[in-house]
Amino acid sequence: MSKRVVNFNAGPAALPLQALERAQREFLDFEGTGMSIMEHSHRGKDYERVHNEAIALLRELLQVPDDYQVLLMQGGATAQFAFIPLNLLPPQKSADFILTGVWARKAFAEAQIVGKARIAANVEGEGGRCTRVPTQAELQLDPEAAYLHFCSNNTIMGTQFHAFPEPPTSVPLFCDMSSDILWRPIDVSKFGLIYAGAQKNIGPSGVTLVIAKKSLIASGREDIPKIFRFKEHAKENSLLNTAPTFAIYMMRNVLAVVKEQGGLAAMEKRNLEKARLVYELIDGEPGFFRSGVEKASRSVMNPVFRLPSEELDKKMVAEAAAAGFVGIKGHKLVGGIRISQYNATTAEQVAQFCEWARGFAKRNG
Amino acid sequence: MSKRVVNFNAGPAALPLQALERAQREFLDFEGTGMSIMEHSHRGKDYERVHNEAIALLRELLQVPDDYQVLLMQGGATAQFAFIPLNLLPPQKSADFILTGVWARKAFAEAQIVGKARIAANVEGEGGRCTRVPTQAELQLDPEAAYLHFCSNNTIMGTQFHAFPEPPTSVPLFCDMSSDILWRPIDVSKFGLIYAGAQKNIGPSGVTLVIAKKSLIASGREDIPKIFRFKEHAKENSLLNTAPTFAIYMMRNVLAVVKEQGGLAAMEKRNLEKARLVYELIDGEPGFFRSGVEKASRSVMNPVFRLPSEELDKKMVAEAAAAGFVGIKGHKLVGGIRISQYNATTAEQVAQFCEWARGFAKRNG
Repeated sequence: MSKRVVNFNAGPAALPLQALERAQREFLDFEGTGMSIMEHSHRGKDYERVHNEAIALLRELLQVPDDYQVLLMQGGATAQFAFIPLNLLPPQKSADFILTGVWARKAFAEAQIVGKARIAANVEGEGGRCTRVPTQAELQLDPEAAYLHFCSNNTIMGTQFHAFPEPPTSVPLFCDMSSDILWRPIDVSKFGLIYAGAQKNIGPSGVTLVIAKKSLIASGREDIPKIFRFKEHAKENSLLNTAPTFAIYMMRNVLAVVKEQGGLAAMEKRNLEKARLVYELIDGEPGFFRSGVEKASRSVMNPVFRLPSEELDKKMVAEAAAAGFVGIKGHKLVGGIRISQYNATTAEQVAQFCEWARGFAKRNG
Repeated sequence: MSKRVVNFNAGPAALPLQALERAQREFLDFEGTGMSIMEHSHRGKDYERVHNEAIALLRELLQVPDDYQVLLMQGGATAQFAFIPLNLLPPQKSADFILTGVWARKAFAEAQIVGKARIAANVEGEGGRCTRVPTQAELQLDPEAAYLHFCSNNTIMGTQFHAFPEPPTSVPLFCDMSSDILWRPIDVSKFGLIYAGAQKNIGPSGVTLVIAKKSLIASGREDIPKIFRFKEHAKENSLLNTAPTFAIYMMRNVLAVVKEQGGLAAMEKRNLEKARLVYELIDGEPGFFRSGVEKASRSVMNPVFRLPSEELDKKMVAEAAAAGFVGIKGHKLVGGIRISQYNATTAEQVAQFCEWARGFAKRNG
């Protein structure tokens, strides 16, 4: 039996063991077909069943309304930074962006290449670092905007929107939910478009989820290459060209586990408990663990903190890895420690880490 | 032990058993790291080693010259149909296209959306069907073209270029090699750019290979979204954003097997033997098996043929599957039978099929 570590990687990240074991079991012979799922044609009925099940599970877990389309695409959120304005930012309009970190800014920068983009709020400090998300009152919104774009969870900064921004009535809300989709139930109908790279809460890297209002997709531009058009992908049920079949198969396996474990209500309970444990650790040793993030903006998915010195940060990363807690090094932009605890991470694992971390603080404080 | 079938799928297609077994063995614990390779960070040293090995193996097998860049991207050849003209077809230039089938035409159609595209030769017949590739003498070439584009193997039509087209001196040659790359050694220096979806000879779907002259990449347009720019991907060694890590890992496994089996010289020998077997079968029963493809254009990778009636086509597909030979149904555009025999298919498997097919012909002829 292999010894699995506790994996706090920011993404690609830990996946549910049951989802991996299922894939391993049938890796050479998918459901008695005599071949791996990745050797199946994307046009065959065996793969098609998996493809449709992945989409159906996602619709069920997120309670996606019937007037929304679910698309499975390639290229990650970064490709969506271009695809979204190419489809949905017409030349005569401008799009509004809330800048809360590295990824929100990247989305803004790509949109500026494609069309007109405007800043609705910016909480970036020195070096682009952010310690909070803006309040609704801080948003300066264009009532004529093609859309309002924000990033719900800022993986690098360790900040998260706990209430979603509210755009003017006629402006659809677009969200990069790459690092916190599925962490709890949400009301999809509040959004025009949600997108997410899979590699945190959905599955392995290589597949990108887009959930968009059908009327918005239908309004998309047609003077762009066909492979960029949401409407063409929608027409073909995300089989416009060869899909990343194994990544979608793994997504199916992950979503099946999430459902079996009680769906998003159960995920929310588990994730709030994990966040409680980590922030209790941080707040309990204020002389040793320092959170630079404002309390109201703290991320449930990616708590970040610093130790009294960079040397101690490094020491903690190394000793944690030796103790079986891997991937806790903060992003180079903010330094320190980051505990990325997506759905696949259990409260038990986080509790084990916190206990270990208290010992580390005692030994080094 | 699972019972594996003989898999003649056109793509995604059969992969070498050793490459799959290696992945299965270490699926939960990659090289003692305590996590699956797909749970590793794309920025970590464990994944990076795999990433660089995949690129190094590809360079070694294809003898890629130093002044060429190897890129691993997402979106399949279909995304390249857009990315290539976006990068390399400047507004004042036109690109030349050789139309030899469905995929060549798709590349032409997308390029027409991005810029000016011109037909250098067209062998399409009724319904877009093609029974051959053009000769060099048939090409009407623009000496000022930004590039000359062709598709080396036409998976649907069962045709293949056995000598590559020769563009005017100042025009670089671009090739969609999705379905025959690595089938034998080639002289990469004759090309400006080669691209291929992985899902035939390289690995699973979800990763796309681009090999391009560095000077061409450097000349690419900069007024397009950053994620579309070859030069940005080149600058970051194909880690501009989160790579499809598991697909690249599988690619590494497949290329390692190809190398171990003797490299591309061994692949060529094996593939020529397989083609000899299938075309001997077809030509040996001219009253029963009918090849519509001109002999000089016959594909080594995807021989196609028809039986005396559509009923017999269907019967052969069904009985072959029952006998363990899966995926021989021709594409709906041309009908009949297609034997897709990429590198992972052994001569022994093809010989077994041919023996079975002779029996089928005897019983039904």
